Amino acid sequence: MVNETQHACNASSSSRSDGGSSSGSESSKDNSRCSTPVLDTDRHERLREKMRRRQDAGDKWFSLEFFPPRTANAAVNLISRFDRMGAGGPLFIDVTWHPAGDPGSDKETSSMIIAYTAVNYCGLETILHMTCCNQTKDDITGHLQKAKRLGLKNIMALRGDPAGEEWEEEVDGFNYAVDLVKHIRNEFDDYFDICVAGYPKGHPEAESYEADLRHLKEKVFAGADFIITQLFFRPETFLKFMKDCQAIGITCPIIPGIFPIQGYHSLRQLVKLSKLEVPQEIKDVIEPIKDNDAAIRNYGVELAVSMCRELLDSGMVHGLHFYTLNREVATTEVLKRLGLWKEDPRRPLPWAVSAHPKRRVEDVRPIFWASRPKSYIYRTQEWDDFPNGRWGNSSSPAFGELKDYYLFYLKSKSPREELLKMWGEELTGEESVFEVFTCYITGEPNRNGYKVTCMPWNDDPLATETNLLKDELEKVNRRGILTINSQPNINGKPSTDPIVGWGPSGGYVFQKAYLEFFTSSEIVTALLKVLKKYELRVNYHIVNVKGQNITNAPDLQPNAVTWGIFPGREIIQPTVVDPVSFLSWKDEAFALWIEQWAKLYEEESPSRMIIQYIHDNYYLVNLVDNDFPLENCLWQVVEDTFELLN
Amino acid sequence: MVNETQHACNASSSSRSDGGSSSGSESSKDNSRCSTPVLDTDRHERLREKMRRRQDAGDKWFSLEFFPPRTANAAVNLISRFDRMGAGGPLFIDVTWHPAGDPGSDKETSSMIIAYTAVNYCGLETILHMTCCNQTKDDITGHLQKAKRLGLKNIMALRGDPAGEEWEEEVDGFNYAVDLVKHIRNEFDDYFDICVAGYPKGHPEAESYEADLRHLKEKVFAGADFIITQLFFRPETFLKFMKDCQAIGITCPIIPGIFPIQGYHSLRQLVKLSKLEVPQEIKDVIEPIKDNDAAIRNYGVELAVSMCRELLDSGMVHGLHFYTLNREVATTEVLKRLGLWKEDPRRPLPWAVSAHPKRRVEDVRPIFWASRPKSYIYRTQEWDDFPNGRWGNSSSPAFGELKDYYLFYLKSKSPREELLKMWGEELTGEESVFEVFTCYITGEPNRNGYKVTCMPWNDDPLATETNLLKDELEKVNRRGILTINSQPNINGKPSTDPIVGWGPSGGYVFQKAYLEFFTSSEIVTALLKVLKKYELRVNYHIVNVKGQNITNAPDLQPNAVTWGIFPGREIIQPTVVDPVSFLSWKDEAFALWIEQWAKLYEEESPSRMIIQYIHDNYYLVNLVDNDFPLENCLWQVVEDTFELLN
Repeated sequence: MVNETQHACNASSSSRSDGGSSSGSESSKDNSRCSTPVLDTDRHERLREKMRRRQDAGDKWFSLEFFPPRTANAAVNLISRFDRMGAGGPLFIDVTWHPAGDPGSDKETSSMIIAYTAVNYCGLETILHMTCCNQTKDDITGHLQKAKRLGLKNIMALRGDPAGEEWEEEVDGFNYAVDLVKHIRNEFDDYFDICVAGYPKGHPEAESYEADLRHLKEKVFAGADFIITQLFFRPETFLKFMKDCQAIGITCPIIPGIFPIQGYHSLRQLVKLSKLEVPQEIKDVIEPIKDNDAAIRNYGVELAVSMCRELLDSGMVHGLHFYTLNREVATTEVLKRLGLWKEDPRRPLPWAVSAHPKRRVEDVRPIFWASRPKSYIYRTQEWDDFPNGRWGNSSSPAFGELKDYYLFYLKSKSPREELLKMWGEELTGEESVFEVFTCYITGEPNRNGYKVTCMPWNDDPLATETNLLKDELEKVNRRGILTINSQPNINGKPSTDPIVGWGPSGGYVFQKAYLEFFTSSEIVTALLKVLKKYELRVNYHIVNVKGQNITNAPDLQPNAVTWGIFPGREIIQPTVVDPVSFLSWKDEAFALWIEQWAKLYEEESPSRMIIQYIHDNYYLVNLVDNDFPLENCLWQVVEDTFELLN
Repeated sequence: MVNETQHACNASSSSRSDGGSSSGSESSKDNSRCSTPVLDTDRHERLREKMRRRQDAGDKWFSLEFFPPRTANAAVNLISRFDRMGAGGPLFIDVTWHPAGDPGSDKETSSMIIAYTAVNYCGLETILHMTCCNQTKDDITGHLQKAKRLGLKNIMALRGDPAGEEWEEEVDGFNYAVDLVKHIRNEFDDYFDICVAGYPKGHPEAESYEADLRHLKEKVFAGADFIITQLFFRPETFLKFMKDCQAIGITCPIIPGIFPIQGYHSLRQLVKLSKLEVPQEIKDVIEPIKDNDAAIRNYGVELAVSMCRELLDSGMVHGLHFYTLNREVATTEVLKRLGLWKEDPRRPLPWAVSAHPKRRVEDVRPIFWASRPKSYIYRTQEWDDFPNGRWGNSSSPAFGELKDYYLFYLKSKSPREELLKMWGEELTGEESVFEVFTCYITGEPNRNGYKVTCMPWNDDPLATETNLLKDELEKVNRRGILTINSQPNINGKPSTDPIVGWGPSGGYVFQKAYLEFFTSSEIVTALLKVLKKYELRVNYHIVNVKGQNITNAPDLQPNAVTWGIFPGREIIQPTVVDPVSFLSWKDEAFALWIEQWAKLYEEESPSRMIIQYIHDNYYLVNLVDNDFPLENCLWQVVEDTFELLN
């Protein structure tokens, strides 16, 4: 990039120098001096800008549509699906709106809350659907205000289904999607990106295909930014529609809606709702295999892949929108075969970034919530600003209280019976707890033959990076150093490293070794003696549930444990060990023993009392080895501690 | 250090844990979250606290007294002396107050401005003397307010000499130093640290030694923090005085004033002023050698060393105060022989820190002023806050205008004749300018046999660190790449490294290679072609005097080029290449050609026109090699450029 900057105090000519070329840009001092070390352009762009940028760069993309779940348990599972499918790199997801399901409420299953969760906790660009018929202006405005408040920035403006069988126009009411588009632009100016629906075969209620195209043009001219189409079965249907749109002056992006057939019944239901006709050639294939789900799905994937290829090859299509029906397999398969699924998307930061606009600049977090990022987001959601550049800058010190919040605190994805199988139907002593931790690390089955795939402090299997430390972790957990978080030291690996890399390419990433664990007071006493030998090298924080806290951190300053050096930027230090937030974390970490583990057992039962004993008497310890260029000394510290005890 | 922190939300007991020991301290969340990565405890301590801390740690220290100079030239020289003697590590310096010399004025030679310069520009803890007799309350208050405004924090409260021969008490006026002490405490509460004078032989005007001790006690009880004594000739004089002070309840630090005899006349004058008697044994030595300055100084050093040793050995003395008479040699010699001179004081940051309280948190600066730190301080003195942690945080973007300010812009320590000898009585073309640059780098004499020890952009000989690049620098300067600033790349050297180290021990320091130079537009054109090959690796800014600016810096963000990783802290990145402040620097860098060099020659003279031509047509270029772990590629960039030109 060539910038030609005029010095503010300098009234010289703006002619370009010999060497300069291409576009110049003005910049004010404030502009640069207050800028943040932006790592990810995406975080500062609107959806329509992202779309435009991808199109200009010739990058193909995809998006995913979901509907809101019926139960809280289903919501927890859908959020996990967002995380998994988000890893494939969708440009956005969208969440449908069902007037009957109280879609704007605060229920954990509402469209509003699901969309908010996707943006805020899963870091996904999200479009919230909204229908307008049979609703008052105030209702609609209320929904939009709430969406804005929750950090949602994109609305799919729809008419929705009429209340009765027959369509009756309301005077002064919202009768068409175009009324909603106008209302959004009137009331919220340019705040939202607006998407509208297009019907490649014409809307079933429209007087004609041509009349429907004119309605679509009205919606675009009223302020819509792009169009997503209803599903269709033949690529030529879409391509003709697209040409017809262009012919009448619709120039915004038009994204084809792709429906991979996943089963006989879901196809029938969708066809009924959409009033579309399934082409005979498809019916001919499906009818004979209608009871064989796998066969239908394979056929659906095949069909979708070939249709998508044709669309992409046309050169007119840059993105594909998938109707997932909240299922994972078929869509993922199609995307992988198309080469659109990004197996290893580059991480802008070592932790998953929230897409909430308030958190746009956030680039530092304490390490403690590394395995519970949603809990961190939840407990910091009331912050007015987020640390940027360094932890010390945040002016919002208070962490939210621990609450019985459905997603982030109490609920595990696994039901009680499964947890009991993993963590033990009956505990016989502290040793049986050590065993659970050890099995989680090794991935080997416990004494009853069950694999331990999650722990109260970590709802997912071990991270790839932690695998680097597996052997050492196994050894110490067996002996009662119950690890819940760790990272190896890294001395300048390329930022493109597939396991530990993050940030723009051309950089180098670094880490200090970190180890966090629960352990008995007996071990802590020995550990503290050992730590005297490592005084200048190892920083420690040791705390029990009552808040007794022993540390050698200088002035309670945060210790940067992950940082990156990049071309042309300030240094990014996204992960710190912060002595003060550690005390907020320890409340959560200790509470999880009781809420997630002890409560699996009857009150007064020996198993419950064992966990209660650990909760009441163990210490939570974290250790940082500051000497990142040398071999990690934390294992030696632990080894020395055990030696001292023997 | 063991901290025992109570979580704010946790009403648990405060009993210490098994492993904990020694003192505990409470800490609030705000306290830690907003804290800065303090590198140097000294910067946040008051003088009396520093004194106390050294005493508790058993560290011996020294301080230095100076008087204000008579002329602006002498001021420039005195400031250089502050820098040189500051390198030895005095706990503080003090500047005397001469009512006849307009000591509180804005003149560059006033006590006030000299003390301000020492604090602000030289980073020295400084005490400003102030006398009170024959002055109104308003005058005194005005002086104190001004001192506070200028960042001075310590006052030596003195009575001063009476106007006439005989001493007359003024009703309601300031008659004694104790009046001034009380006034300071009344009007400024605890803002200033106050020092008072003690007289080991009693004040010459006091009724008796005992009466004088009582006066001293009054001064201390009125609010003085410590005592510096008048000079004396025998250690036992001081030790008796100290015991007598303690006997009547004076417990604050008492610092002996040491006067190394430096010459016959200065001794006589001082004795006359102080009304002290020189012991016969000293007179006996001095009288016979009174015309041999060197002999007297040697004797003086010998005498001072033996007296200081005796004082320190007594165990009652922790610091020594030296009356330097603005001379360097004798005092430095005494300090070196006592082992108090710190040859290689640890740097808290890679650049010299200002001691102005406003700049307490400053820990990031642009690299451009590396050789002109006083100019940087001068041009940012109006800032309300200083960047801390990262450059982007500063909210004071405007650099002060270039002005004809005596210390930092126009004046060089060397007089015009010397500069002409170094830089050429007569220039014959651009090549003779290349030659000057080359001689400055190599340290070899120019064609007229003179060494080039300074340049317009650098008033001192080449920094030790730059010496690492000497061979390459010589080569490129010869060919018209006129370097004014550079640093080598460093990939994780210990923070205690004697050449490139800084910050607390146990850390690692890093640098990206940097090169800054003036060069012709012909070379720039070739350079830009070469830089295309290095697009992802090298960031560049190329600007001419008119402000035409070519850069590949992403979004005009600052690039961190020096950083350090330390135990238990956030990352410190004290030096950045900032695209915006570069434009403020280039005004200064180009102006120095004219103000310091061209103006040595007659108007219209060929020599002057050569410099003017360079000023008008050359470009100022800076290059950063982002790939700090690899071998510095900037020399290859320059080599490639010359190859392209041939």
